[in-house]
Amino acid sequence: VRCEVVAIGTELLLGIITDTNSSWIGEQLALNGINSHFQVKVGDNFQRIEDCIRTALERSEAVICCGGLGPTQDDITRDVIAHIMGGGMQRDDAIAEEIRRRFEARGRVMSANNLRQADVPVGAMPIPQMPGTAPGLVCPIGDKVIYAVPGVPSEMRTMMEGTILPDLRARSGLTDVIRSRVLKCWGLSESGIAEMLHDRIVELDESGHATIAFQASGIEGIKVRLTAKARDEETAREILDIEEALVRPILGEAIFGVDSETMETAVIDALGEQSLTLAVAETLTGGILASRMTQADPEMQIYRGSLVLADPGASSPHASDLPAPQRAFQLAEQARQELRANIGLAALTPLPAEGMAPGTVIMAASIGGQDIIEQVILFPDRARMRTYSVISVLDFLRKTLAAA
Amino acid sequence: VRCEVVAIGTELLLGIITDTNSSWIGEQLALNGINSHFQVKVGDNFQRIEDCIRTALERSEAVICCGGLGPTQDDITRDVIAHIMGGGMQRDDAIAEEIRRRFEARGRVMSANNLRQADVPVGAMPIPQMPGTAPGLVCPIGDKVIYAVPGVPSEMRTMMEGTILPDLRARSGLTDVIRSRVLKCWGLSESGIAEMLHDRIVELDESGHATIAFQASGIEGIKVRLTAKARDEETAREILDIEEALVRPILGEAIFGVDSETMETAVIDALGEQSLTLAVAETLTGGILASRMTQADPEMQIYRGSLVLADPGASSPHASDLPAPQRAFQLAEQARQELRANIGLAALTPLPAEGMAPGTVIMAASIGGQDIIEQVILFPDRARMRTYSVISVLDFLRKTLAAA
Repeated sequence: VRCEVVAIGTELLLGIITDTNSSWIGEQLALNGINSHFQVKVGDNFQRIEDCIRTALERSEAVICCGGLGPTQDDITRDVIAHIMGGGMQRDDAIAEEIRRRFEARGRVMSANNLRQADVPVGAMPIPQMPGTAPGLVCPIGDKVIYAVPGVPSEMRTMMEGTILPDLRARSGLTDVIRSRVLKCWGLSESGIAEMLHDRIVELDESGHATIAFQASGIEGIKVRLTAKARDEETAREILDIEEALVRPILGEAIFGVDSETMETAVIDALGEQSLTLAVAETLTGGILASRMTQADPEMQIYRGSLVLADPGASSPHASDLPAPQRAFQLAEQARQELRANIGLAALTPLPAEGMAPGTVIMAASIGGQDIIEQVILFPDRARMRTYSVISVLDFLRKTLAAA
Repeated sequence: VRCEVVAIGTELLLGIITDTNSSWIGEQLALNGINSHFQVKVGDNFQRIEDCIRTALERSEAVICCGGLGPTQDDITRDVIAHIMGGGMQRDDAIAEEIRRRFEARGRVMSANNLRQADVPVGAMPIPQMPGTAPGLVCPIGDKVIYAVPGVPSEMRTMMEGTILPDLRARSGLTDVIRSRVLKCWGLSESGIAEMLHDRIVELDESGHATIAFQASGIEGIKVRLTAKARDEETAREILDIEEALVRPILGEAIFGVDSETMETAVIDALGEQSLTLAVAETLTGGILASRMTQADPEMQIYRGSLVLADPGASSPHASDLPAPQRAFQLAEQARQELRANIGLAALTPLPAEGMAPGTVIMAASIGGQDIIEQVILFPDRARMRTYSVISVLDFLRKTLAAA
């Protein structure tokens, strides 16, 4: 089964909203083994929406229409689909009742317009998941199908996962379960990982049990995605477990997390396990590290905070008598003491006078006053250095904790 | 002239990259009075790219192809366009030389593949702006036109602004200049602004000199866009100047910036004018404010830094004897003193025991030890409170400085 996506809304064409729904849907279709060759954006215009859907139905077996299911006069996706199905529209009393109930529950007054959302093309079935007031639709056209989902990303995702992906898989005759697991890596290049895993990939290609793919994701590192196809959930998980156990020793400590884990949560977890707390001096990362850590640890029980300040070595002629590694340690120690943590962390760039390679970043940790110092070389432009040094310095701490 | 966008690249369909180029192009086309009714994503497949371009040429006068101009075998946009133009491909020696020169300048070795980028469909003209190694193309097809630009956003934008938008405007017979200016506002609702500007909008509609439009932009506030159409640049600027002078007194101090100015740059500028420095205690904003301020003032000459820490009032039973406004002031004063600035700033949420409305944020400034305290009520969920309090507290400081 091939499936196209038609994203509907004039605000998408005008660039007022960026269409991220199609990207997400495209990723999900790929993960489920369904091809998607075209994805289109079209405005709130009856004729043009109709043209897009008809063209899509000619070259594919399924079309997902995203958006235009709201209560206003602009929202005409339902009407266009009813026209294509050729049977008019009828009000679904159960949906009308449900919409009424939701307005009452929120203490809001429902306008007559809102009941338009309960109008369903004859022959279409409402999607049972209905997180908002816009019902989704499954609309069979001969042996092909149009799905309609709201443009609100969370509502769209719920319907995709609950109804559309399983239906597409059934239509594709895919009774197998496809599951994947992402191993997130830092400190290796994409080509380096490809080389390290080369033999494993060849073996898998021959066995057909699972696949491995890579995806460079900027400061999120490189994602190694293991995908297994199996007759049921449990078997798929077993294949992924076996595969992960084979891949881990090859990539070693470069793997910092699995699936939704991030470098921040990896560091917070490692600190938590050893009952340690952390404070950071951010002369280079300028608060970016703090903004990520406070999101991962909002109660700040483990991450105790940051001192965001200008590098004192760069301004005072006095402090700059110390070489960069000692200055970095001094900053780490200052953060540790002022914010009363077990570990202090700092990253800075050497002064031009120190003659180190452009892009050099010195990272220092004070573990209860004991110094650990390392350096990396990053892209020498300031913006990238700021963001990449955040994950570099967290990775440095993660490896330091693992070695302890 | 109607202009469609065809974004080319399998990674766009798979959701590995989100297509933000089409949104930006759509916005620019709209600002230049050019209609764009369809925007399509298609993978790196010759036949399917050809189908998309042919369909677009049937219903529109211009097509912008974005992506697929790189040096690898996947990059086939040039080949498809040459096929549609019907005249084959020929190497452009000047471009080949330029590509060679750029590789040498960076000290890199050029592979033979890279010269593919110098192959130009017969009848096409290279776009003079060439910020990377992928040349853009203007390809006339009868009285219609295909433009090809690289998928790298900065390269695409340079070519759009330097060649494609002027060419489209000339093709549309739009000899008028369209210019716009964005007034960024904070502290008013979209409907409030619409009401305040209602009379002005009616007058403009009648005069036809300029238009006013609004766009809510989350934590960037509400953008009020003034657009003028005139016979030349200077006249357009004059109309915008007059219009801005009429709108400013109506919206008053809600306007914090123009065009690319942000709340951060507005605050930095206001501090700079009064030769003041700033330090911030971030118990609530958790480093988000710092990460934005250090981007606006990387040398940290005016913004001196932040203390990112847990609200001491929330943990110590001692400090919480003080009511929230005093605690906020105490934090502001602590940041001011520790980071040696003229002004200290802080924002915090009251403790549950203080019984204030959910979403209440207390903002305090210490101006050389003098306290100024205010409060706002934001969405009570943590993530939104964190981000919205950043701009709220900066706006509080901006207004405080303006009143001084």
